[in-house]
Amino acid sequence: MKESRTLLCLVVLTFIFGCQPSPTADEVKKFINSQNTKLVQWYAEGLIDSVANVFTEDTWQMPPNSKPLVGREALRSFWKQAVQWGKWEFTLSAQSVEVGGSIASERGTFTLTFTPGPNAPQGMSAFADTGNYLCLWRKQNRVWRIAVDAPVSELPLPTPTSDSRKK
Amino acid sequence: MKESRTLLCLVVLTFIFGCQPSPTADEVKKFINSQNTKLVQWYAEGLIDSVANVFTEDTWQMPPNSKPLVGREALRSFWKQAVQWGKWEFTLSAQSVEVGGSIASERGTFTLTFTPGPNAPQGMSAFADTGNYLCLWRKQNRVWRIAVDAPVSELPLPTPTSDSRKK
Repeated sequence: MKESRTLLCLVVLTFIFGCQPSPTADEVKKFINSQNTKLVQWYAEGLIDSVANVFTEDTWQMPPNSKPLVGREALRSFWKQAVQWGKWEFTLSAQSVEVGGSIASERGTFTLTFTPGPNAPQGMSAFADTGNYLCLWRKQNRVWRIAVDAPVSELPLPTPTSDSRKK
Repeated sequence: MKESRTLLCLVVLTFIFGCQPSPTADEVKKFINSQNTKLVQWYAEGLIDSVANVFTEDTWQMPPNSKPLVGREALRSFWKQAVQWGKWEFTLSAQSVEVGGSIASERGTFTLTFTPGPNAPQGMSAFADTGNYLCLWRKQNRVWRIAVDAPVSELPLPTPTSDSRKK
């Protein structure tokens, strides 16, 4: 009797601890929200090394209507230049986070306001954008980082007679 | 000796069968590829009920430079109208699939060619698009469906002097 109880205990304990406990979506959402708050600040302040560190080494960032930035170094290099051109003010708001094992998806809404500075390339005007995004987060070495960032603008395409993106 | 071996066996078996075996990324990628082949065909043929059935009830489809389609019924309703306007020819190519529990992410490339028909709204011209996408697939009741579809155009925004999207 005692033996079978020990056995049962062992089986139950192995079941509990044998399976990697998944973090809850709420826990991951909380972390993502905190990273988003920092990202917004870091983009605005031009702290691009900090921004880059939130992305995986093999990350894909896909800015709307541009070629994607493939890899953390490409992202770092693009944004180090871009922050010289002016101020990038984002808002990021996670709407839905789903977690499965070591990946998590984040669907959210964004806005962006770009204000050119004295070093902006000729012809680069102020612009604003707004839309939705889907991010893939991946946990590697216990750290969640963005592996794919897919923001989709919901502004209609400008036409020759009305260019809605330019302020 | 015999008893401890039985115990060890039980512990190992509990570990193996206690954890839900995750489908491999390869298996899911194979399924996604087969769904993409069908989707492309269904969009081109205007079989929108079949298209809609690949998406979850609470799906978000975010066409570039448009408001998102929220929910399977919104998607169905939009596309049933859109296929009256002309022919939508997509290519979809999954580049990377990651699976965690009951979610999977698919990063891929797409192209789209729209050819207006006699019922196209006035002023709706032929256009082509190309870019990258990130999809969230979710397994519900043993079926994988698209919960979020975020295609990002990589074509530069048209400007008043060069409208690159219009053929």
